[in-house]
Amino acid sequence: MTSLDDLPIRDDLRGRSPYGAPQLDVPVRLNTNENSYPLPEPVVEAIGKAVAAELRDLNRYPDRDAVALRADLADYLGHGLSTADVWAANGSNEIQQQLLQVFGGPGRTALGFTPAYSMHPLLATGTGTGWRDGHRGADFGLTAADAVAQVREHRPDLVFLCSPNNPTGTALDPAVIDAVLAEAPGMVVVDEAYAEFARAGTPTALALLPGHPRLVVTRTMSKAFGFAGGRLGYLAADPAVVDAVQLVRLPYHLSALTQAAARAALAHREILLGTVQAIKEQRDRIVAGLRAGGRAVADSDANFVLFAVGGDQRVAWRALLDRGVLVRDVGLPGWLRVTAGTPQETDAFLAALDSWATGPGSDPIGPGSASTRPGPASSGPEAASTDPEQ
Amino acid sequence: MTSLDDLPIRDDLRGRSPYGAPQLDVPVRLNTNENSYPLPEPVVEAIGKAVAAELRDLNRYPDRDAVALRADLADYLGHGLSTADVWAANGSNEIQQQLLQVFGGPGRTALGFTPAYSMHPLLATGTGTGWRDGHRGADFGLTAADAVAQVREHRPDLVFLCSPNNPTGTALDPAVIDAVLAEAPGMVVVDEAYAEFARAGTPTALALLPGHPRLVVTRTMSKAFGFAGGRLGYLAADPAVVDAVQLVRLPYHLSALTQAAARAALAHREILLGTVQAIKEQRDRIVAGLRAGGRAVADSDANFVLFAVGGDQRVAWRALLDRGVLVRDVGLPGWLRVTAGTPQETDAFLAALDSWATGPGSDPIGPGSASTRPGPASSGPEAASTDPEQ
Repeated sequence: MTSLDDLPIRDDLRGRSPYGAPQLDVPVRLNTNENSYPLPEPVVEAIGKAVAAELRDLNRYPDRDAVALRADLADYLGHGLSTADVWAANGSNEIQQQLLQVFGGPGRTALGFTPAYSMHPLLATGTGTGWRDGHRGADFGLTAADAVAQVREHRPDLVFLCSPNNPTGTALDPAVIDAVLAEAPGMVVVDEAYAEFARAGTPTALALLPGHPRLVVTRTMSKAFGFAGGRLGYLAADPAVVDAVQLVRLPYHLSALTQAAARAALAHREILLGTVQAIKEQRDRIVAGLRAGGRAVADSDANFVLFAVGGDQRVAWRALLDRGVLVRDVGLPGWLRVTAGTPQETDAFLAALDSWATGPGSDPIGPGSASTRPGPASSGPEAASTDPEQ
Repeated sequence: MTSLDDLPIRDDLRGRSPYGAPQLDVPVRLNTNENSYPLPEPVVEAIGKAVAAELRDLNRYPDRDAVALRADLADYLGHGLSTADVWAANGSNEIQQQLLQVFGGPGRTALGFTPAYSMHPLLATGTGTGWRDGHRGADFGLTAADAVAQVREHRPDLVFLCSPNNPTGTALDPAVIDAVLAEAPGMVVVDEAYAEFARAGTPTALALLPGHPRLVVTRTMSKAFGFAGGRLGYLAADPAVVDAVQLVRLPYHLSALTQAAARAALAHREILLGTVQAIKEQRDRIVAGLRAGGRAVADSDANFVLFAVGGDQRVAWRALLDRGVLVRDVGLPGWLRVTAGTPQETDAFLAALDSWATGPGSDPIGPGSASTRPGPASSGPEAASTDPEQ
């Protein structure tokens, strides 16, 4: 039997495994930052109708430039954006892959600030772009001075910023983005997959687009819109950036069904985004509940919370799973990430954590302390796993 | 205003334009090898129902491995194939891009035999893979000896074969594939986008899979299934190849809607593939009609026909367009490609060609002759255009 090792795959892919979180069948799945709310019936009906209207003509290729969808996305984003400023693809992963193909690739480099969205380095590898692993402060923060120093050191062709950052949850101060834009020799990509969940008063990098043709803001409909199964990511940038990604996009990359379904979802955004407030309330409840228990918790502008378990996070992850709650071990020693979902899911998560922390035979577990601050990423299998949920 | 030239795009992309056939609004569109038949009502209903059943849970990510769809595709292909032998993506372009990412990339090369599917070199460039432009005989044929000599010369990491070949239409003798498999140091990709239209008795490379773990056969639902708007391409190969592409595939690349729609289409394949015979009849009618008029025509196993115009193909292309018929100038001096569609479209195409060839003020036009055999590709804009319809 032929194995992967017998095939002439690229040397830099040897020994790797396909990336993705374990998909386990448990009652409470809070591991991939999905929106826990199913689509409401009126939206289901509207999307169903919109898709049905496309089916007879499925023999024809879709609109290669997805013009109507891009117009709708621009309208949603506001900030004076129009069709020419927006590009769409099958998830923000494909958007970021296209950016790496046109601005990165062989002989070029991309810099990110770890821990951040773990697909960024993988997308770099997949496009032959060298990856430079930058770092954050001990509290997962990133100051302008620290970011600029790393940009100056690496001179990357692309810088990836993540705001709100995944897996830590905290949004970036726009001053950091401004400083990076001033220093970076190439493109600056701000991944705003979770922007809709940001706390009040948190600015979006969209406001920085005028006058910054090398800034790209990426978004997704997977989270706030509850459209993870529909696969729709997009970017906003100078029209020249949209021209650039078209040099590498696969022709007809976005199906007629995807375009129609996403447009119908956008048309019903008031209903769909109605879940955002409810999710933010659960997010804040989780943060408050954990802090009340004395745990260290990162500030969250997202639909998830990174918290210190007060010990080995692999033990805690397993203990929660044994209690029917699946959270995410992102490979940060001492920390786990939990998605904010429904009130019932929050109940289940907090109860499971409480049951474990206070239960008989549990590992000694205390509130987060200085010793739970992340050191170097662990080298176990979880550290190599990734988190492809944007 | 910022232009593309002001951005730090890769040097090898400078000066290029986004790829794709002109999409013109004319009565008879025979330029992108679409299936001219809209989906029949029972299939429309079935796909609509299948998609509707997914909508409520669109907040959840789709099956990352598309297992049920791959099982259905394996069942359709036969040849003893099963789920583990099949992989699916958003069009065969994405399949081939994944193959280039994992087996090609920086420092590696891919070889194709021009003229062939013009996306192959573009996908190579987009993945940082060096492209080696092989050649065919004067009659667009490719013999085993000629193919093997070129493989020996270039030692490519991937060889792309196209059977039936696009834009010429002729299927490969399996002996050529066998010979290339024996000589090639890396992977051999046989692009069978048009396989369902092959003339009776034309073998598929699927039969060569047993014992050849470096052979990959790619297919699409865009043509025979009339599913171009649905975007579904796939491959059949050794399970180790499927493992390999999973190292570079974007997680959740295939939406829940795409998976459901494609499965419903496959479940109704007897109805959908009912158009194949009708299209083959029109294809054969076009070949016979053109040959009866004394024109040189390449043998076709596809849903299109490459024919000699007896002069400058750009003049002929424009003359047909002026008569409401859009065909494809693939950049081969003296030749044009026309899609086989409905009987009415064949009527319109043949009448337009006849009207031009015999009309007043037309360029002198005669039957295809030795002088219309392809020389070097023309350097005009059409030569740079590509043909992304697989």
